[in-house]
Amino acid sequence: MSLKLYFAPGACSFVPHCLLQLSGVDYEPQMVKLHKGEQNGDEYKAINPRGQVPVLVDDGHVITQILAIILYLDQKFPDAHFLPSEALPRAKAIETLAWMNNTVHPTFTHVFMPQKFCDQADVQAALKTFNTQTYANLLSELDDLVQRKGQHAAWLTGAHIGPVDIYALTLTRWGSIAGIDPTTYKTLWSHVQQVAAHSAVAAVIERERLQLNLFKPT
Amino acid sequence: MSLKLYFAPGACSFVPHCLLQLSGVDYEPQMVKLHKGEQNGDEYKAINPRGQVPVLVDDGHVITQILAIILYLDQKFPDAHFLPSEALPRAKAIETLAWMNNTVHPTFTHVFMPQKFCDQADVQAALKTFNTQTYANLLSELDDLVQRKGQHAAWLTGAHIGPVDIYALTLTRWGSIAGIDPTTYKTLWSHVQQVAAHSAVAAVIERERLQLNLFKPT
Repeated sequence: MSLKLYFAPGACSFVPHCLLQLSGVDYEPQMVKLHKGEQNGDEYKAINPRGQVPVLVDDGHVITQILAIILYLDQKFPDAHFLPSEALPRAKAIETLAWMNNTVHPTFTHVFMPQKFCDQADVQAALKTFNTQTYANLLSELDDLVQRKGQHAAWLTGAHIGPVDIYALTLTRWGSIAGIDPTTYKTLWSHVQQVAAHSAVAAVIERERLQLNLFKPT
Repeated sequence: MSLKLYFAPGACSFVPHCLLQLSGVDYEPQMVKLHKGEQNGDEYKAINPRGQVPVLVDDGHVITQILAIILYLDQKFPDAHFLPSEALPRAKAIETLAWMNNTVHPTFTHVFMPQKFCDQADVQAALKTFNTQTYANLLSELDDLVQRKGQHAAWLTGAHIGPVDIYALTLTRWGSIAGIDPTTYKTLWSHVQQVAAHSAVAAVIERERLQLNLFKPT
């Protein structure tokens, strides 16, 4: 068995990166330097024509898309309990992951890469402003979600740390890049600290050389 | 067992609507009139605070998000083979569904509801124009994907019709609303006809009173 993950520091590839670390198996983390445009080079496009991270390669088989990789790893490493196995809690976990992936994540893209949605500079500036506010609202929704967890469980999907917890860290960190102070979302920020302190997550944070909070007060 | 699906005609809720029809079980389809704003009323927001369709209610348990509902129905009705059961083909099917859900679908939202991304009229007009072109490119990518299926399988994920086929129909139909002639994507359009002709899908098309091609030449 050979497992290789193409990741970019701080990108959503952080989620499968942590899952592989949590699994305890040998895997090869391969950094893709987005700032050097490696994702658009011929070599990388031969692996993923969409030029995105993450990509998981399992014995030569390429899987892209964070949700597909998460579900694949959950099936491959059942003992890690990345997702609940019961149908209903499992559906609720996937519901949250899908929302993170199709709503929260693309909202940040409007702030971070507005050129994906329009080629006019003034439109891009307007998109940044409007969607930064939307992103702040979405982090409030995420904060509410963490609050609903309550004291009954250590992690967002139960007794085991999983992709919902780790994706929450990534999205909160992105908020700090978008100029949103993450410490104002008290429950969420506290949970993010708890996730970051988990030994497997901490190891990936160190490998990716991430700062959790990049917010700079003006 | 009671199964209820909240759907809006032509929305992405068409996918789980068809899956329920394919399953052969009794279910209650409940139309939500988006043009009357029912999705933002107190009654609906009590079910789904995000005011979106689809919502599946299984014995009182609410599941939102199309990917979560698809995976839940796949688990509930294994004999329908909505998704491949083998790990790798399954991951590739979910990869396509995730891309449809986080890339193709939100691109259409920029054309159909640009007000979600900015409150300025000129910015909304610019978003419509730019993202209509992006959407046309994504339909080309979808056309390529259908071409790669080749003659070896009847449907996009193998021997059984499934959510990838049905979502492809919805996204192609949306293209026709965005002013893109779907018949120019020959392989995709031919596949969409095949999907629409399936008896379960045809029944849902009739219930939702859908026209497949709303393109009007200028």
